[in-house]
Amino acid sequence: MPDPRDPRTRKTDTLATLATPAIDVWVASASGEGAPHLVPLSLAWVEEQVVVAVEASSVTARNVTTSGVARLAVGPTRDVVMIDAVLDRTVEVADDELGAAYAAQADWDPRRSTGYVFLVLRPVRVQAWRESDEIAGRTLMRDGDWLV
Amino acid sequence: MPDPRDPRTRKTDTLATLATPAIDVWVASASGEGAPHLVPLSLAWVEEQVVVAVEASSVTARNVTTSGVARLAVGPTRDVVMIDAVLDRTVEVADDELGAAYAAQADWDPRRSTGYVFLVLRPVRVQAWRESDEIAGRTLMRDGDWLV
Repeated sequence: MPDPRDPRTRKTDTLATLATPAIDVWVASASGEGAPHLVPLSLAWVEEQVVVAVEASSVTARNVTTSGVARLAVGPTRDVVMIDAVLDRTVEVADDELGAAYAAQADWDPRRSTGYVFLVLRPVRVQAWRESDEIAGRTLMRDGDWLV
Repeated sequence: MPDPRDPRTRKTDTLATLATPAIDVWVASASGEGAPHLVPLSLAWVEEQVVVAVEASSVTARNVTTSGVARLAVGPTRDVVMIDAVLDRTVEVADDELGAAYAAQADWDPRRSTGYVFLVLRPVRVQAWRESDEIAGRTLMRDGDWLV
């Protein structure tokens, strides 16, 4: 097993992961009654924010719009980026700059479908680790500020 | 891209996935206030139930013990098994049949640590899909009963 990565390397790896074409993100959300939801969605990383396209009527859209928060995971379980995020804004999918940015990274184009909205999620805490030896030092962003 | 799998094949694949040695599960849970949580954990599949070992003081233990529910995902995002589960029981990790069964499948042995409990989670809904062409027919279990 390789040595644990230093914080700078983890941040570099994290940003590379988030910019990977056609990568998915696990989006965990919860209803006001505390029912957990979890779905895999295509991700775009636009101006240091996570953008996902969801059906406006979906459980995820409803939960995140109501609560304003989501917890995200990118990568396999042994090389994860975990993000606690707040909803910056919900916007209609349109043929604009955001729509183009999303379609450029994701492997599908919601501008060709109807009923979708973008959830623009701003990270407030970011953690990255591979194996248990990387649990220490896993926090790269806290309260919206990169620590490295 | 291969043809969509039929329900029987999906169930066979799902059961094989759940019995895979050293496989992880994403566990989504929520607090009573609706704060979503998500962590990757080692899974064991014991008597048609998902067993995970967590620190008794962890957010996941607290959420699931309080709410009695979790949403689980196994596999990569393009070959997922999604499980809505209810908490069957929480038990102290001990050198008993369950401890042995967990250690036999997981890649670590919580019996060698202290402060861990097993969450034994009973699936009530199971879905499995790879790509978007498998969204139709993804439900394999509903209300605790296999449909195939």
